[in-house]
Amino acid sequence: MNACLINGQALSRIAISDRAIHYGDGLFETIALKYGVMPFWCDHYQRLLLGCERLKFPPLNEALLLQEIDVVKQNQHHAIIKIIITRDASERGYRIPKANTVKRIVQAYSLSEYPEKNYQEGVRVIFCKTPVSENKHLAGIKHINRLDNVLASSEWEDESIAEGLMSNAQQHIIQGTKSNIFCVREGEFYTPDLSSAGILGIMRAQIITWAELHNIKMNIKAITRDDLFAADEIFLCNSIFGIWPVTRLEEHDLPIGNYTQKLLNYFG
Amino acid sequence: MNACLINGQALSRIAISDRAIHYGDGLFETIALKYGVMPFWCDHYQRLLLGCERLKFPPLNEALLLQEIDVVKQNQHHAIIKIIITRDASERGYRIPKANTVKRIVQAYSLSEYPEKNYQEGVRVIFCKTPVSENKHLAGIKHINRLDNVLASSEWEDESIAEGLMSNAQQHIIQGTKSNIFCVREGEFYTPDLSSAGILGIMRAQIITWAELHNIKMNIKAITRDDLFAADEIFLCNSIFGIWPVTRLEEHDLPIGNYTQKLLNYFG
Repeated sequence: MNACLINGQALSRIAISDRAIHYGDGLFETIALKYGVMPFWCDHYQRLLLGCERLKFPPLNEALLLQEIDVVKQNQHHAIIKIIITRDASERGYRIPKANTVKRIVQAYSLSEYPEKNYQEGVRVIFCKTPVSENKHLAGIKHINRLDNVLASSEWEDESIAEGLMSNAQQHIIQGTKSNIFCVREGEFYTPDLSSAGILGIMRAQIITWAELHNIKMNIKAITRDDLFAADEIFLCNSIFGIWPVTRLEEHDLPIGNYTQKLLNYFG
Repeated sequence: MNACLINGQALSRIAISDRAIHYGDGLFETIALKYGVMPFWCDHYQRLLLGCERLKFPPLNEALLLQEIDVVKQNQHHAIIKIIITRDASERGYRIPKANTVKRIVQAYSLSEYPEKNYQEGVRVIFCKTPVSENKHLAGIKHINRLDNVLASSEWEDESIAEGLMSNAQQHIIQGTKSNIFCVREGEFYTPDLSSAGILGIMRAQIITWAELHNIKMNIKAITRDDLFAADEIFLCNSIFGIWPVTRLEEHDLPIGNYTQKLLNYFG
């Protein structure tokens, strides 16, 4: 059993009236705790605040969240902290109730172990058939309406495939099911524009900053399958696993390039 | 407190590991019980089965659902029955767990009372700013990823507005926040194509059948705001309230037309 606090109380069940159960009305963050600290806390918290604003949740209390994380992590130095923000349904129907009572669910999980060879040899990636859901008002934030990721992740069973790429209706690549994607061509970085779909990943933002610090041109734009096949390097990222080089895209092989290697050394 | 069964047990709380809470991984139906019967049971059950197929839920047992509904309705002859289908998270992550354990939540609510004048004088309707989420693999079914409806329903507070209309990114009208929409022009019916977004409503299907029985041409296609402003009649429908004539669309007034009146007499 994972440690869990609901609004500060040690509970493992939630009222059936919660709007997460009825409408997916909520937000979440999955945060790496490493060596006793959360290196990207500020980025997670910022995204959570943006989500609260978009979904009309009242502001969160950062100190309270940090105290609750401190309780659930117990004596672990390496863990995954999951925060879910939802609200109660005081009335039936979609409309946000006037009371707008926030529920904070804070949990600790053991840190996932990913195969060492994902970093050293790179990963195999396929294209998913399930499209990403498109909605400009919901794009970017980490809300709970994640059926597109659920279906896309369930498209393959072959354990040698590490990730699937999801596209929009125009067949532009948006993201992996649990990661963001970058490619490198002729010394420039490219990553999909996420203004209509996808999640603004924490590690994605770190890489955008890293590129700027290293004077590398970053292109945030629509990216096609052909763009990926023409790339010199491709890599995936998220805040839990860090960086994975893509060395096989469908039947196409790629090397682990210099830029990817540098990022692996830094974030891997 | 509403009567509630979770997999047949009288419970009011659900395990925090449920995937509805984490990803909105589930389906629902809101079913009218009138005079002790559910006149559209078959249609709701059909849509639920389609949803199960799309979201890779194992098939449901109809007899079991009906028995559970019979328990929660207690001695009520008029009520709203809500069914939620979700699954447990035996592992962390988006992928559907191999166990794929279904949870059935069956609840009874008291039937909503809508103002009599919604039927007699018609309703006032506005255009919402929140777009509908678009995803061909999720369109049509009644899944729990309903943040677009939540945000759209929360755009107005004026009690004189009965419904808001939601559009896709191309500004085609798709649906109301809690209803489907039809318009009538020169004796023909029009209703939005829902192949990329929206819910295939139970009452919508009834009206399509009714039109066919009455030899009225039905056009299921992209519908613009201009199409609505040019319509002779507009009405909204859902399986709980039946039919509401639209007599005011933004600042534009409309009459309650003959076709709408016939439908009101039949379904209203």
